[in-house]
Amino acid sequence: MSGTTLSAVATGVKQTEIKEIGLPEISEDSALLKVEIVGVCGTDVAYYKKISTPMILGHHVVGFIEKIGPVAAERWGVKEGDRVVMEEYIPCGQCELCRTGYFRLCSQTDPRRNGIRYGVTPTSVEPALYGGFSQHMYLHPNAVLHPLPDHVPAVEAALTLPISNGFEWMSLIGKAGPGSVVVIQGPGQQGLVCALAAKASGAETVIVTGRKTSIKRLELARKLGADYTVNVSTEDLVERVSEITGGKMADLVIDVTSGGTEPVVSSLHVAKTRGTVLLGASKGHLFQDFDLDVIYNKNLTIKGVRGHSYKSVQMAVEFISSGKFPLGIMNSHNYKLSETDMALKTAGGEGEPFPLLVTVSPWL
Amino acid sequence: MSGTTLSAVATGVKQTEIKEIGLPEISEDSALLKVEIVGVCGTDVAYYKKISTPMILGHHVVGFIEKIGPVAAERWGVKEGDRVVMEEYIPCGQCELCRTGYFRLCSQTDPRRNGIRYGVTPTSVEPALYGGFSQHMYLHPNAVLHPLPDHVPAVEAALTLPISNGFEWMSLIGKAGPGSVVVIQGPGQQGLVCALAAKASGAETVIVTGRKTSIKRLELARKLGADYTVNVSTEDLVERVSEITGGKMADLVIDVTSGGTEPVVSSLHVAKTRGTVLLGASKGHLFQDFDLDVIYNKNLTIKGVRGHSYKSVQMAVEFISSGKFPLGIMNSHNYKLSETDMALKTAGGEGEPFPLLVTVSPWL
Amino acid sequence: MSGTTLSAVATGVKQTEIKEIGLPEISEDSALLKVEIVGVCGTDVAYYKKISTPMILGHHVVGFIEKIGPVAAERWGVKEGDRVVMEEYIPCGQCELCRTGYFRLCSQTDPRRNGIRYGVTPTSVEPALYGGFSQHMYLHPNAVLHPLPDHVPAVEAALTLPISNGFEWMSLIGKAGPGSVVVIQGPGQQGLVCALAAKASGAETVIVTGRKTSIKRLELARKLGADYTVNVSTEDLVERVSEITGGKMADLVIDVTSGGTEPVVSSLHVAKTRGTVLLGASKGHLFQDFDLDVIYNKNLTIKGVRGHSYKSVQMAVEFISSGKFPLGIMNSHNYKLSETDMALKTAGGEGEPFPLLVTVSPWL
Amino acid sequence: MSGTTLSAVATGVKQTEIKEIGLPEISEDSALLKVEIVGVCGTDVAYYKKISTPMILGHHVVGFIEKIGPVAAERWGVKEGDRVVMEEYIPCGQCELCRTGYFRLCSQTDPRRNGIRYGVTPTSVEPALYGGFSQHMYLHPNAVLHPLPDHVPAVEAALTLPISNGFEWMSLIGKAGPGSVVVIQGPGQQGLVCALAAKASGAETVIVTGRKTSIKRLELARKLGADYTVNVSTEDLVERVSEITGGKMADLVIDVTSGGTEPVVSSLHVAKTRGTVLLGASKGHLFQDFDLDVIYNKNLTIKGVRGHSYKSVQMAVEFISSGKFPLGIMNSHNYKLSETDMALKTAGGEGEPFPLLVTVSPWL
Repeated sequence: MSGTTLSAVATGVKQTEIKEIGLPEISEDSALLKVEIVGVCGTDVAYYKKISTPMILGHHVVGFIEKIGPVAAERWGVKEGDRVVMEEYIPCGQCELCRTGYFRLCSQTDPRRNGIRYGVTPTSVEPALYGGFSQHMYLHPNAVLHPLPDHVPAVEAALTLPISNGFEWMSLIGKAGPGSVVVIQGPGQQGLVCALAAKASGAETVIVTGRKTSIKRLELARKLGADYTVNVSTEDLVERVSEITGGKMADLVIDVTSGGTEPVVSSLHVAKTRGTVLLGASKGHLFQDFDLDVIYNKNLTIKGVRGHSYKSVQMAVEFISSGKFPLGIMNSHNYKLSETDMALKTAGGEGEPFPLLVTVSPWL
Repeated sequence: MSGTTLSAVATGVKQTEIKEIGLPEISEDSALLKVEIVGVCGTDVAYYKKISTPMILGHHVVGFIEKIGPVAAERWGVKEGDRVVMEEYIPCGQCELCRTGYFRLCSQTDPRRNGIRYGVTPTSVEPALYGGFSQHMYLHPNAVLHPLPDHVPAVEAALTLPISNGFEWMSLIGKAGPGSVVVIQGPGQQGLVCALAAKASGAETVIVTGRKTSIKRLELARKLGADYTVNVSTEDLVERVSEITGGKMADLVIDVTSGGTEPVVSSLHVAKTRGTVLLGASKGHLFQDFDLDVIYNKNLTIKGVRGHSYKSVQMAVEFISSGKFPLGIMNSHNYKLSETDMALKTAGGEGEPFPLLVTVSPWL
Repeated sequence: MSGTTLSAVATGVKQTEIKEIGLPEISEDSALLKVEIVGVCGTDVAYYKKISTPMILGHHVVGFIEKIGPVAAERWGVKEGDRVVMEEYIPCGQCELCRTGYFRLCSQTDPRRNGIRYGVTPTSVEPALYGGFSQHMYLHPNAVLHPLPDHVPAVEAALTLPISNGFEWMSLIGKAGPGSVVVIQGPGQQGLVCALAAKASGAETVIVTGRKTSIKRLELARKLGADYTVNVSTEDLVERVSEITGGKMADLVIDVTSGGTEPVVSSLHVAKTRGTVLLGASKGHLFQDFDLDVIYNKNLTIKGVRGHSYKSVQMAVEFISSGKFPLGIMNSHNYKLSETDMALKTAGGEGEPFPLLVTVSPWL
Repeated sequence: MSGTTLSAVATGVKQTEIKEIGLPEISEDSALLKVEIVGVCGTDVAYYKKISTPMILGHHVVGFIEKIGPVAAERWGVKEGDRVVMEEYIPCGQCELCRTGYFRLCSQTDPRRNGIRYGVTPTSVEPALYGGFSQHMYLHPNAVLHPLPDHVPAVEAALTLPISNGFEWMSLIGKAGPGSVVVIQGPGQQGLVCALAAKASGAETVIVTGRKTSIKRLELARKLGADYTVNVSTEDLVERVSEITGGKMADLVIDVTSGGTEPVVSSLHVAKTRGTVLLGASKGHLFQDFDLDVIYNKNLTIKGVRGHSYKSVQMAVEFISSGKFPLGIMNSHNYKLSETDMALKTAGGEGEPFPLLVTVSPWL
């Protein structure tokens, strides 16, 4: 394909530059995406802070098919002009994990093993356009995408992947449903969409926790459907959950806080006998004086959860498309392509205040 | 216990008589219920039409604990004055089915095997008060009951058992949830609460079918949350479901129609590949020219479903207590104890017009 | 790749011809298989009887990698000289069904929709070598294969796909395990491997049924581990199962008979309350006077089952590799490539007597 | 009932006395058991070491129904003379946990909450005979028992409850089956029966670990079906499991060691991505420098497991009754009632050497 496009290439630590990049030839089984909007993810910020090789960040991508080969069109069930939301994975499709529904764990999509994945692939990998902070993105033959109706507002569409994590963890893995009491530790973007997903799955009582520094996010949690919020800087979580539930405690608890080990410990304590505790964030700390017997004594189930499946992304697409939830209120900052640095800084807490959902619209 | 109570005893085919019955002594492990309201079930009507031995009908029972022994109080976690909703089963609690969570299939609660069960036990079985159409009901040591908050309107509380069927079939067995397309064949009381339960579990698209004689019920289905209704007297169901779902068809289908075999056949055809079809009603007819290969060809799952579990009743109690759904609109007729005959006739389509939820309040 | 290979091409109804076919170039992501042995499947026989366009039949294929591109080698984890067993599917790897573990239902591997699949793809589709009755077979980039240790006897390796069906149906879908009572209707190749798989999964009691014409197969069933066999030409199946199980009846029943509707009806009757009945064969007949209420009354689960998953093939590979079961006794006839017609006729009951596992070894 | 029986009453720390205790009247819903054999459990030893109130220990009980009331006979499906194996629980049968299949968690069977349970109930609770180290045991109306065929050797029957734990943890919770790699940490009685249960469920590869002090038990593990044993005093477990499995690691790991925290840590490391680790023993130690991120990074599932369900005991009864496994080799010491002290000391490692399955036969 002749012509070029503009991309915000991360060229060094906390630094992007707008570059003109040649558009690729589109083969029978690939396509070119005109990027409409990109949500900034915590992972983007983490990479932004330690860039050592140039790459285009951004992997919560929504756009329109600008050009597509006939094999890709049939395989994906889309045509030029169609709107789609992308998964970040570019799995091989042929290994055991791909064959059994766990393509998100495929080694060919793992950047730590030289795999390719949207948002974390060096521009040295042809045709370079593997990130969302760009006017165009290359759709690799193994890309995973989902059609999205045109009526969905762009800022809501940009929430598809976070919300799919919510459905994966709350509904598909955590089995939240009518009658469930759910405790969500951490009112960040991921905690908030877990609250949304739990309520959308019919959970009876959803409790979101945060610290005194996140009072505004706790307010937002209630607007998004949380039944209760607990400020753990001033309230005892175990006591509050006992009070709220009449002593029954929680069926399902998830830790999506960053940092300390305390939320994991309190998660084990607010879970009821035979309850489930999901670990949705790496802690990066070793635990001291950790009492594992609580797992044995209460017959708990603990699970590490990461990422989404095809089904949960589809659930998120249908949920967003229904228009029944006030997702727009999560939108905090929207930037132009030339402001990608500010978008990444804001999302990382070093830019404009009160970030929540930070997006970039490359054609603004 | 000294004193008597008033009961509407079914003494013959389509005939009840108000009788004065002695109140039982309450042992350490039993109790006496002051009946607040009773919903009329299709089963009540069926028994009413073929009574051969006197019994007190009525098993969708809500009431207040009037007197209770200390062992029962501790076991059930209730005290005098507490409001409760009853299950109809009086299981032994000690057989294999009871030990494994299937007490509803316990032979000691099966009237066909001389078991006892609320609403179908002859008054010759001491202490006679085994039915809801009565000012008091005996709470057997093996009774299964659930506490209910005082703020729930009585007519909504009377829906607990039908709604628990809805949760059992749609959620626990049928796995309806976010993203699901559900087709419910038959807009009777059971179909309507299935629609409620499917939506409360997060189902994306709920379609209720009926015939031209049930237009009013289809309207009600939409008020209760159904996304679409289909009048199968004038519309082709398979075509409509294909249209609504963009050709994806239904994940979950249930037949709760009475009578003919056609709804079962169309249920198999609207289910998607790998979909599930629940049979929620006895048909009483042999099938002719029945093509079973559709089950094989589409890898379908067919399940017979009957009754509720402890968990689904608890889900219904919490759902009703939340007050978030307009259950009151299902209330069509409320009668006094002396009008029990009319209640049964109306529920059976031989009394006042347009029955839906018909109730008796014995203390009116 | 220069050179040619020899293939038995089905050129007309019940007729194959040995033809010399050019070997394909092997690209980076494909490979060439030297075929060691091919098991004859009932599907091969069915196609053989109605060939209208030339194709190479045979899809239970075991062989050695003769040449492989580097991308395929890494993706599949195999190298030249390695022994592998093939699945028949050539799925796209990128559609919703492939992404969710159901690649066997992918439309690109469905011959009824012009998809390609081993053993049923016309030789007009390049590079023609899509069947096992040939000295070489083309390994398409989307082929699904499993490494197999060298020590496994070839005739046992040829049973991999039938046995994987056994594990898929008995274990993964049917949940047979310690304590289970399993009834298998039909002692053909598929019924026998279901018996093997059920016992290997720990099923307590396995009962295989057959008619008076299959006495030898019932004997074989017992040698393969079946605890009981029932000759339904002379014995009442329901009575026998009741007798064997002390009235408990069967947890799991499968119908893998060809032909009539009776085995499906008796399957419903030997299943216990809450039991499962699997339909593993198309009947091709409409049912008359079919009583569906038995499904409702006994809370049965009925499922149509077809084919295997990646996991069940892997289970079969490990089962066969363990060498613990006397699989060799299923081997009834082994033919040369030039005898492919006789192999197909024997497997179809029109050749040599007493077929069970019929195989072709193309290099004999 | 007139007459008395002889019981070994634990009257103080590490001390039992043979006492004559009056036989109870048998009501309509209770029974009297003539005890045939009792297996000594680790729990018995733990109680024996800290007795503060007299009680009859022993809860792995097999015996014959000596007298039974008609209600109990019908409910349990047994008659006088029948052989049965007892569960230790005496649950209420009417609470939420009992109603949902988790009677083992019922508070009325929890001795820490003044509940009654076989083997840990003071003789001050009427009719005193709540333990197996006695010629007779009282069968409470809420007792849970399973009929057992007469042909099973007594020492094998005494293993029913340990083996049922094995089935509960390996099969029902851990989903071991064909193709599974299972690592069992700790070759004590519980580890050995886990090995048995895993193999009986079809697990492909079972690896049992132990220290240099348990070489004889590791040998026994191999005789009972373990495919490999690892002496962790001299071998690196992670390396060995990698070697055995060709790098695939374990699907299922269980820790049933007593004492240290190391086996839990190595369990997390030998589990494969998406694997399951069961915690089957209280550790009684806080963990230091514990890296919880391994759970998150590998998407592991960790579960605390305790006790058996009705179904797993039934699985154990059928497994033992089949006579296919060499259970007799676990029998290490059999004592008379008058030797109950020695039985408890031997089982606790303070009596005769090399204990494994230690039993008491009260009528010897």
